[in-house]
Amino acid sequence: MYVIMVYDVNQRRINKVLNTARKYLEWIQNSVLEGEITEAKFEMLKREIEIIINEEEDSVIFYIMRTTKYSERQILGIEKNKREQIL
Amino acid sequence: MYVIMVYDVNQRRINKVLNTARKYLEWIQNSVLEGEITEAKFEMLKREIEIIINEEEDSVIFYIMRTTKYSERQILGIEKNKREQIL
Repeated sequence: MYVIMVYDVNQRRINKVLNTARKYLEWIQNSVLEGEITEAKFEMLKREIEIIINEEEDSVIFYIMRTTKYSERQILGIEKNKREQIL
Repeated sequence: MYVIMVYDVNQRRINKVLNTARKYLEWIQNSVLEGEITEAKFEMLKREIEIIINEEEDSVIFYIMRTTKYSERQILGIEKNKREQIL
């Protein structure tokens, strides 16, 4: 399955959330990661995130696609992810 | 079609990007909007965004789904969008 993760968490927890997410998904741009992931690893990711965040203050959304056959990605401006790799 | 929009733009252009996106999509959390949109309106949204952003500095990604039948949304923590409506 393919997962897009977007997070809106308190400044103090951003690094922890980002570093955890990066173990499973690819960083795309500020607060957004995505990638192919197995069901089992996705469950691990969610458990790790749940431990980090404050459930009354932070928000993490996962868009889960069983197939990417019906979806497409369009970018306006730069691809931050590419730039990161070059720098 | 269904569109998820995530943006990572210079502070100076955030408000313009957000206000433009809000005319077409629903605000979900910091830098994320989504919603059902027609092909024609999506083209209008992209044209408006293109005028606002600096193409060498800003990044706006659209995930376009022809159907939401194969996708799902899971949230950890709060739904910022709901809280906004209550406040």
